[in-house]
Amino acid sequence: MLRVYGDLQSGNCYKVKLLLAQLGRPHEWIHVDILEKQTRTPAFLAKNPNGKIPLLEMEDGVCLPESDAILHYLAEGTPFLPSERLLHAQVLQWLFFEQYSHEPYIAVARYIIRYLGRPAQHETRLQEKMAPGYAALEVMEKHLAGRSFFVAERYTIADIGLYAYTHVAHEGGFELSRFPAVRAWLGRVRGQPGHVAMSGE
Amino acid sequence: MLRVYGDLQSGNCYKVKLLLAQLGRPHEWIHVDILEKQTRTPAFLAKNPNGKIPLLEMEDGVCLPESDAILHYLAEGTPFLPSERLLHAQVLQWLFFEQYSHEPYIAVARYIIRYLGRPAQHETRLQEKMAPGYAALEVMEKHLAGRSFFVAERYTIADIGLYAYTHVAHEGGFELSRFPAVRAWLGRVRGQPGHVAMSGE
Repeated sequence: MLRVYGDLQSGNCYKVKLLLAQLGRPHEWIHVDILEKQTRTPAFLAKNPNGKIPLLEMEDGVCLPESDAILHYLAEGTPFLPSERLLHAQVLQWLFFEQYSHEPYIAVARYIIRYLGRPAQHETRLQEKMAPGYAALEVMEKHLAGRSFFVAERYTIADIGLYAYTHVAHEGGFELSRFPAVRAWLGRVRGQPGHVAMSGE
Repeated sequence: MLRVYGDLQSGNCYKVKLLLAQLGRPHEWIHVDILEKQTRTPAFLAKNPNGKIPLLEMEDGVCLPESDAILHYLAEGTPFLPSERLLHAQVLQWLFFEQYSHEPYIAVARYIIRYLGRPAQHETRLQEKMAPGYAALEVMEKHLAGRSFFVAERYTIADIGLYAYTHVAHEGGFELSRFPAVRAWLGRVRGQPGHVAMSGE
């Protein structure tokens, strides 16, 4: 059976959980606590030398890290990933956008507030996350104006990837009220068959 | 003809140039100067609302941003991108690793030193890039010990993606002498048929 090492409070891990649920793929979920440094143990580093979750472990022991590479692996050949060349690349475009222009601001701001308890020594760093985080939301808002989903007018792993941290952006101090197209899209994603909520939400 | 908007001093843009050269794909290269804010003009933002280079413009005017989505689009169906499910995902794993765990440290340190001229107000930020940048090089070193290339023992877009900023890591203050496997791999990448150097190197 597939095994996933992750923490359901992490959006990067939740992406994998959501796709597995919608694919109906049985799997074993092994909780890994980052704050307890469980990704830095020799046993975990042997599975993923980069020491990050989520991590997918196949039946034969092969391990695949990086949330979006895992989404791609699981979604290939399913309706969640278009096979047409340009659409395929556009799905990846939004996944790379999420990891480079969205997650380092929105997810990290949420981490500082929610996990670290907004300590004074991180306040400057937190404030620096605001402008680029809002810029990412603005790019999403423009793209979603007049569109139902990010690519090909259907629900794909691009939507799963971006939903994970956008739907909890308020926990990072981001106000979504000025992004009506993003909010409508969040509702459409929540309405997909087999949707599961982030743990504890 | 394909059109690429980019700056050859940027590793993210050079990735695309290198693959196009090795594919022998004719293209028009349009130089875009980031420091002159040419990615923030209304005309450029109409092509890429995220305001970043590189940007690939197809014959029919469709625009594709994100360096690694462009690599994927151009490489699909060629020997530079394995089609087998797991190998395909592993190529993406390394491209996501590069964008999340490598580029924000190694490329940004180079940017601060080489483009901004290492101003005093960025010194703390520069120092903060060192440990995670070296951690990324360490992950690469471990993976390359006993391997020729990142995935499937052959040269793929995973190697192109990681070569772009690794081969100029010294310009960001990173010392490569303690990474013999990385240095040997850099040599193998440079030795590939059709290799072109980064402009001005």
